[in-house]
Amino acid sequence: MKTVFEMIIDNEIPSVKLYEDDVCIVILDINPIQKGHALVISKKPYPRFTLAPQDELSHMMEVAKRVDLKMREVLGADGTNIMINNDPASGQEVPHLHIHVIPRYTGDGKGFVLNKDKYDDNEIASFGEKLCLN
Amino acid sequence: MKTVFEMIIDNEIPSVKLYEDDVCIVILDINPIQKGHALVISKKPYPRFTLAPQDELSHMMEVAKRVDLKMREVLGADGTNIMINNDPASGQEVPHLHIHVIPRYTGDGKGFVLNKDKYDDNEIASFGEKLCLN
Repeated sequence: MKTVFEMIIDNEIPSVKLYEDDVCIVILDINPIQKGHALVISKKPYPRFTLAPQDELSHMMEVAKRVDLKMREVLGADGTNIMINNDPASGQEVPHLHIHVIPRYTGDGKGFVLNKDKYDDNEIASFGEKLCLN
Repeated sequence: MKTVFEMIIDNEIPSVKLYEDDVCIVILDINPIQKGHALVISKKPYPRFTLAPQDELSHMMEVAKRVDLKMREVLGADGTNIMINNDPASGQEVPHLHIHVIPRYTGDGKGFVLNKDKYDDNEIASFGEKLCLN
C-alpha cells in the first residue's frame, strides 16, 4: 500500500509543491511547527536515511540549503532546523525519507511540536508561492 | 575567540571522541537528550550548514549514517533523530556546524529537550567506548 508521500509524488492527492526534480520533491507540511515548514522528500521510498544512496541524500541536503536561504529571503526567518527522523521511535510519521526544513524566528517558542502553527484558509497557497524554488 | 568546539578540536578541552578524520570529529554531547547523543562536528567553523561546502556536508552525513547504525547495533536504539540547528533562533548553542545524532527508543518520552538525560559518574566514558567508530 502506498504511503501519503508516494500518493503526493504520483499526484494522486494534492500538495503545495515548492520544487521537484528527478531525486526529490519539496512540499509544505500541512501540520507545521511553524508556517513555511517544508519537507524535502525522496522520490524513492527509502524508509530511513541510512538506506538512501549517498549521492541522493547529498543532493537532498543541497536542496534543503536552497529552502533555508529562501526562508530567510522571503519570510525573514532568523534560523532553521534541519531534521530527519528515522523510525517511529524518533517521531517519524511516514516511513519514507524526508528532511524537515523549519523556519525559526527569535523567541518564537514553537519548540518541536507538530501542529504548533496553523494555516488560515488559503494561506498555505500564498506561502507556497512565496517559497517556490523554481 | 575560539568556541568550545574549536577548543575540543584543538584538544584544549577534553571530550569523549567517537571518531575523527580530516573533515570532522564525532563526540558525545555532555548535555544529552538521551545517553549516547552524538555530535558530528565540522573541523572548519562554518556557522551554519548553508556555508559548508557540499562535499564536506555530504561526508558528515555519511559519518552520521555510521553513527546511526552503531547506535542500533550497540545500544539497541529503535530509531534516531538527525538534526542541524542553524542560528540561535533555532536553538543552535555553538555557532559552528554540527549534526546531532540522537538515539531513540520506543516511548522514551525524551522529546527534544537538552539535558533530558544525565550521565552518572564515568558512564559517559563507557558510552564512548561502545560507540567508538574506529
